[in-house]
Amino acid sequence: MTGQELDSSKPIVLRVGTIFYAQEAWEQLSKNVNLLICDSQTREEFFEDLKGKYSQVQYISRTYPSIAQTGRWDEELISHLPKSVISVSHTGAGYDQVDAHALRARSIQLSHLPKYVDNSTADTHVFLLLGALRNFNAGHHALYDGLWATHHKSGGVPVAHDPEGKVVGIVGLGGIGRNILKKLQPFGFKKFIYHNRKRLPEGEEDGAEYVSFDELLATADIISINVPLSEHTRDMFDDEVLSKAKPGVVIVNTARGPVINEEAFIKHLKSGHIRSAGIDVMTGEPYANMDLVKLPNVLALPHMGTHSYETIKKMEEGVVRNIISAIETGHVVNLVPEQQGHEFSKGCK
Amino acid sequence: MTGQELDSSKPIVLRVGTIFYAQEAWEQLSKNVNLLICDSQTREEFFEDLKGKYSQVQYISRTYPSIAQTGRWDEELISHLPKSVISVSHTGAGYDQVDAHALRARSIQLSHLPKYVDNSTADTHVFLLLGALRNFNAGHHALYDGLWATHHKSGGVPVAHDPEGKVVGIVGLGGIGRNILKKLQPFGFKKFIYHNRKRLPEGEEDGAEYVSFDELLATADIISINVPLSEHTRDMFDDEVLSKAKPGVVIVNTARGPVINEEAFIKHLKSGHIRSAGIDVMTGEPYANMDLVKLPNVLALPHMGTHSYETIKKMEEGVVRNIISAIETGHVVNLVPEQQGHEFSKGCK
Repeated sequence: MTGQELDSSKPIVLRVGTIFYAQEAWEQLSKNVNLLICDSQTREEFFEDLKGKYSQVQYISRTYPSIAQTGRWDEELISHLPKSVISVSHTGAGYDQVDAHALRARSIQLSHLPKYVDNSTADTHVFLLLGALRNFNAGHHALYDGLWATHHKSGGVPVAHDPEGKVVGIVGLGGIGRNILKKLQPFGFKKFIYHNRKRLPEGEEDGAEYVSFDELLATADIISINVPLSEHTRDMFDDEVLSKAKPGVVIVNTARGPVINEEAFIKHLKSGHIRSAGIDVMTGEPYANMDLVKLPNVLALPHMGTHSYETIKKMEEGVVRNIISAIETGHVVNLVPEQQGHEFSKGCK
Repeated sequence: MTGQELDSSKPIVLRVGTIFYAQEAWEQLSKNVNLLICDSQTREEFFEDLKGKYSQVQYISRTYPSIAQTGRWDEELISHLPKSVISVSHTGAGYDQVDAHALRARSIQLSHLPKYVDNSTADTHVFLLLGALRNFNAGHHALYDGLWATHHKSGGVPVAHDPEGKVVGIVGLGGIGRNILKKLQPFGFKKFIYHNRKRLPEGEEDGAEYVSFDELLATADIISINVPLSEHTRDMFDDEVLSKAKPGVVIVNTARGPVINEEAFIKHLKSGHIRSAGIDVMTGEPYANMDLVKLPNVLALPHMGTHSYETIKKMEEGVVRNIISAIETGHVVNLVPEQQGHEFSKGCK
């Protein structure tokens, strides 16, 4: 619709980032709105366009990879949004690329998509946990490198461990953490413990025992990391914290890379203090730290936690639902926690 | 004890293959028996030694990798066993390396270790199933090859699938199959179906629906293979059978390589008729078929199903228990199915 006349009787929606599977939902929506597809190629161009052809947009959708097009939605970017903007809908659960406070200061709602990602992220987590616990990465590469026949027994890979007798410590028992817990329960682990900043109501603990962060570090054989990235969690697992973990601990992170200090992580993986790790996320992604990726005791994926047809489709459709709700009721469906309780006047009917 | 005098008041045990973790159990046993450690380096040397220094052995233990030392325990090898042999105890569940019928014909008991391997093999199976379903192998290698930053979204790997809506078809619902079923149940698959040569009693089906082999092939989105290798199951999944599978099927095999015809397997993986596969076993192992291993839609491990400290230790201890039982009662604990119902006179008290 760029360059076309806008229909002033209809709301204006700007879509930032590629849609893969929810074409039908977007086609439906486009019948009732002016749909603009963001074609700005750089951050600077985006800022220009926000003053120009996007200067009247009211509802915006964005995706995680669209950061390559616009950069982070930080205070600077948000200051360039036109006054007309009512809501920004992020296609994902984790919205660390977007400054929720800066949006709130401008009375712009931010929606994300919790729950939608729980299953596929938890499946990825279980895959990485089993792989790290059992040393499957080293075995796979020994096989791939042609070492099976010459090194015989499973490619000469050091023997690893079964779930039996192991304590799983979940850091961040929320939607994804509980989903992981449910899926790990039949595997015969000894015990599940968890740490959140606040203890959950008993009915939401699903059999996991609440412990302090230090107790979790001291007793968990496997640490399962499921915290969102924020100023509280950045570098949460630094050298000091990792040093306190049980020697031989297995660490699994499908949350966000920067919650672990990567330098300290590599140091403890190399020394064997951390026996092995399964990671779907890295600090500088999509620029991978190859020193980390190539360690034989690290099983790494390129952020595939939600890389599945069913999940991406549901997320893309969820964004459309948030936009429709914002148009029809003045409120997005899935307001982010930092904005809850705030009165948003713009757009309300 | 080789070259030493045997204590004629004690039974004679021959151990073939390396023991890793059950030193204590073997040390205990060795107080009450003449323990011979097989140091024959080739099949020919083993045959010679069976006529010489091992000519009075009564109880034998063997391991899977010891096939490199002796070759298969086929009719030929078994014909070389001295008359004194009462039992052969295999360190594993699958005993396709040993001819149970030939042993029975000589009235020698064969024990294996069912159940001991169920957990670790099922864990491996779940790992491979999740990995194949979600295309994690391709993602991991894209990351490993440094393609994440340039190919962006998850290294440019084709999007794959969630368990949601998928039918899992278990071929061989025995100890391992049921263990896999139990562990997959919380993942949200649509349905579990299974095929055995005979339908199980309802109480042992654990919620899986019995179907014919053809119906399983026609309806399963994921085929989970858990059959022992025998003359009935060799090449069970040949070109014709694989052609009947649902287009886009995911195949997981942690049983034995030769139950799938490897040439047909590769053909259907290359065409995409089989979307992806997770395999822990291969036909010529430990000589890997690298055409199979290097396919981007194959996640392969070098037979690590029981490659864990806890499981190996339990299996090694289980072998000692079978030997002690054979000495004390005349009967091994875990007689293989083909030999059950047969009267073994040798060694009985």
